[in-house]
Amino acid sequence: MSIIAVGSVAFDSIATPSGRVENVVGGSATFFALAASHFTDVRVVAIVGEDFTVEHESILKNRGVDTRGIEHAKGKTFRWGGHYLENLNEAKTDFTELNVFEKFQPQIPAEYKDSEFLFLGNIHPTLQSAVRLELSEVKLTGGDTMNFWIQGAYEELRETLRLVNILLINDTEVKMLAKDSSLPRAARKVITMGPQALVVKHGEYGATIFFREGAFGIGSHPFRAPALPLEEVKDPTGAGDSFAGGFMGYIASQPELNREVIKRALFYGGVMGSFAVERFGTERLQSLTRGEIDARFQLFRELTHLE
Amino acid sequence: MSIIAVGSVAFDSIATPSGRVENVVGGSATFFALAASHFTDVRVVAIVGEDFTVEHESILKNRGVDTRGIEHAKGKTFRWGGHYLENLNEAKTDFTELNVFEKFQPQIPAEYKDSEFLFLGNIHPTLQSAVRLELSEVKLTGGDTMNFWIQGAYEELRETLRLVNILLINDTEVKMLAKDSSLPRAARKVITMGPQALVVKHGEYGATIFFREGAFGIGSHPFRAPALPLEEVKDPTGAGDSFAGGFMGYIASQPELNREVIKRALFYGGVMGSFAVERFGTERLQSLTRGEIDARFQLFRELTHLE
Repeated sequence: MSIIAVGSVAFDSIATPSGRVENVVGGSATFFALAASHFTDVRVVAIVGEDFTVEHESILKNRGVDTRGIEHAKGKTFRWGGHYLENLNEAKTDFTELNVFEKFQPQIPAEYKDSEFLFLGNIHPTLQSAVRLELSEVKLTGGDTMNFWIQGAYEELRETLRLVNILLINDTEVKMLAKDSSLPRAARKVITMGPQALVVKHGEYGATIFFREGAFGIGSHPFRAPALPLEEVKDPTGAGDSFAGGFMGYIASQPELNREVIKRALFYGGVMGSFAVERFGTERLQSLTRGEIDARFQLFRELTHLE
Repeated sequence: MSIIAVGSVAFDSIATPSGRVENVVGGSATFFALAASHFTDVRVVAIVGEDFTVEHESILKNRGVDTRGIEHAKGKTFRWGGHYLENLNEAKTDFTELNVFEKFQPQIPAEYKDSEFLFLGNIHPTLQSAVRLELSEVKLTGGDTMNFWIQGAYEELRETLRLVNILLINDTEVKMLAKDSSLPRAARKVITMGPQALVVKHGEYGATIFFREGAFGIGSHPFRAPALPLEEVKDPTGAGDSFAGGFMGYIASQPELNREVIKRALFYGGVMGSFAVERFGTERLQSLTRGEIDARFQLFRELTHLE
């Protein structure tokens, strides 16, 4: 089945303790789409400028991603520059040039409208809601957001949350959204805002999914998937979007939607996040094979499974 | 089989957002012994003052802990006061009165010398080494330490590490000890300092064990056990020592020592840590039953296991 990813396509300039790259193709929709493309058909909705060439687009096309929903506008593509210090936990932004992204009004091609799954990347909540309402037939909607919207567009975001089935954000964002410093309590509050499930991304410690009572199965027990303790993290950029791509992509690839599928999806999310950080930008997601993905899934399973 | 726990017995005064208690029995040896007592015979080596009464000691004795190694010295028992802010991640020390603990020279009773297991709680590395050398027959030694000794007694600690089979410390301590900000790389360095395995405690995110190649089984793949996302944490004091008690206690209770036993022990460590924080001081560890422990073990397993 196919999934629509709405979000940003950008040129990233990144410096980490392992090196630096300039103007590599990045953005939330790019990482998400490349990660999800290893599991299912992906269709991107985004905006780029005149500097975004056929070669740039081929990064997505080579992975079979449908790019008909990428609008080519007058002007320059969104550019982001950032660096990471020794511990790699937090990106420090050096510059943000929104360029054409500032005027982004997602246009869904008619050919996309039979998609069963939707992922609303980290854009203004009002745009997220508009896309979701236009695609009224989708079976499942995943969504992302960030502190910028939680603080600056709280009411609009609350509207979006009513339209999202599974929200994927990190610990800090959950606590900020719920105004509660206890993660499980904050998670419970976020669940009452609309989503049937909440995926909390813990970075190097993996991720936990909290369920609304009875959503996708019986009970409301949370589930936790580990992350691999990685010795070499070259570039953390896009790890969260790659996680979301693995998670949603795996779900969209399955004939049924139940707790067990969602648990496996949480592992696949961690797997794709762990690959993304091994190289700069999207390099590793482009070269990956399904065999490598399944081998790492097995490794993650062994990492935490008792006999 | 029996395990000797060397460490502190103290009176704690603790304030958390859930309330406060004064002069309750605490200390690393106390939490460790109570947690381990649910799995195996425990023998404590510690020092207390004249203010430590028969009633205080009964907290340990009621759980069948052998207290013959607790020295009653002239003066007052070690006292610690601290508080936790909203996020409960870090104890802020209000006061430390070492009292008789300052002169602690661990004395191992002759009756203890047939013990197969040893846990060196967080005391001066030189004292840890002396105890370990005196108990030359033990089958397995676990050890703890903290930033205070890593910074203030580094060379002595390096000596101790040569005598410890499994070291249990937290993320920050591993990175400080190895002088490396990457956890897996730091873990590998610590393994070269002596221990065959290193347990890294991640607090609310569980724990990871790293193995020296071939130690306790084949290969060197790490293993990770989750922690339960707990809605009510009343008092984090003693969580790490309770983790160590569950981990070492379970190992000591098993007829064989192999990877699978150690993996299960890591789960039991998380289980005991999760109980410890549910009530103030040692209250929950005193009232626990083995049925409750095994039910939570099952919950932890389900929290992270795929079908």
